[in-house]
Amino acid sequence: MEINGSQSQYKEWKKLNTKKYRNRTQRFLIEGVKMIDEAITWGGKIESILYSKKLFEVNGGENLYRKVLEKGLYLIELDHHLLKGICNTQNPQGIVGIIEQMDYSLEDIIKNDVGTIILLNELQDPGNLGTIVRTADAAGVDGVVLSKGCVDLYNDKVLRATMGSIFHLPIIYNVEMEECILRLKREGYQVIGTGLNTDLYYQDIEYLPRKALVIGNEAHGLSNEMIHLCTDIVKIPIVGHAESLNAAIAAGILMYKLQGL
Amino acid sequence: MEINGSQSQYKEWKKLNTKKYRNRTQRFLIEGVKMIDEAITWGGKIESILYSKKLFEVNGGENLYRKVLEKGLYLIELDHHLLKGICNTQNPQGIVGIIEQMDYSLEDIIKNDVGTIILLNELQDPGNLGTIVRTADAAGVDGVVLSKGCVDLYNDKVLRATMGSIFHLPIIYNVEMEECILRLKREGYQVIGTGLNTDLYYQDIEYLPRKALVIGNEAHGLSNEMIHLCTDIVKIPIVGHAESLNAAIAAGILMYKLQGL
Repeated sequence: MEINGSQSQYKEWKKLNTKKYRNRTQRFLIEGVKMIDEAITWGGKIESILYSKKLFEVNGGENLYRKVLEKGLYLIELDHHLLKGICNTQNPQGIVGIIEQMDYSLEDIIKNDVGTIILLNELQDPGNLGTIVRTADAAGVDGVVLSKGCVDLYNDKVLRATMGSIFHLPIIYNVEMEECILRLKREGYQVIGTGLNTDLYYQDIEYLPRKALVIGNEAHGLSNEMIHLCTDIVKIPIVGHAESLNAAIAAGILMYKLQGL
Repeated sequence: MEINGSQSQYKEWKKLNTKKYRNRTQRFLIEGVKMIDEAITWGGKIESILYSKKLFEVNGGENLYRKVLEKGLYLIELDHHLLKGICNTQNPQGIVGIIEQMDYSLEDIIKNDVGTIILLNELQDPGNLGTIVRTADAAGVDGVVLSKGCVDLYNDKVLRATMGSIFHLPIIYNVEMEECILRLKREGYQVIGTGLNTDLYYQDIEYLPRKALVIGNEAHGLSNEMIHLCTDIVKIPIVGHAESLNAAIAAGILMYKLQGL
């Protein structure tokens, strides 16, 4: 096995595909030209960049390589088949970044005057989580809070679905949601949950300048405990025969409404 | 191989996991208690039901089995490991339906007074397509039109993401989109496309009682030709650093707006 860097190092990179090892090392992997470019542009803490010659065949690859050199990032070349062994996509673009996990706190998200926060309680689907982060970014939401029991933010499917937005806004995770909601209420935030057992539609309530939206688990929605913690419970009208909306769609419609967009 | 029904029949069921064979036979597979139940309730054309003893261990399985018997549907028992060989989920619920493909036309979707149609042009992601069908159903949209080059409606991931909504509203596919838009315009429909090169936000235009929304490909959006065919081009505001919204999220926000919901 020809590799610049030892075989044991290679194994460690590969192990970053498991949540357990990501947690232990406080690192995660990102793949592809766009994600690495976003990490550089938006101040992601890049530990090292792995690449293969394949990078130079890819759109924007050459430019990105130069950018990486200019930034003086730690750069390691691998054979493409080795790099592929670390990747989760079928046709990797020949570049992988090893990134330090974020270290935000609720203080980075709470605003004094006008603000919107999105809280995700036990959300399970990686695509939903990534899409919600991307939509929160688009809607100018201040930050995203993930409860204990949410799918791992650094899962490759989540990261891909964020389309780089993971680097654009503060996200905190492994949060005790009940405590977080109580804290936000003490700070004067309106806390809006979604439920089916309510007569109030989301268009019908008044939104305060500072508000938090709570989205529940895909299968079970918000628990009764969570519903009781919220200041307002709203629903989105369903006029057809669908039982419910997908969690990311509901979150998207509500975030755009809360932001007045 | 113990199987009620011949081995060649088993192979044919399995082949329904390929688009080619689905097209040739005009059939498709659905899996699981909820999907089969929706098919029965909403008049899906069920050719036969395959099940294993596993079904009786699953929530709602016993009830569904009785419903299938009452309806006099053609029912075949398989060993669970054989049934599993046909399924795409990791833990199949022990029931699979073989269904005739839909046979709607644009006439089933066009309304004379008030109506909303969603047109999808070369949409590629199965999850997006399924979620858009589910959201269209929830928002009470009259029907969904898929252009040539869209991901196959009968792909298992699409079906799963529809959560049964595939049986709730007319969907037509393999449609020449240009012809379809010209036809809708002749019928007096407002045809709304989304694009980035416009100053008009979706909140700022007036919507006619009959309207069609065109959503483009995830990577490329709508082509210039498509944009020229539309009567109005709008955008959804992006106030953060995301480049764009996910196609299903954009479709969701716009469908709810168009429906006045």
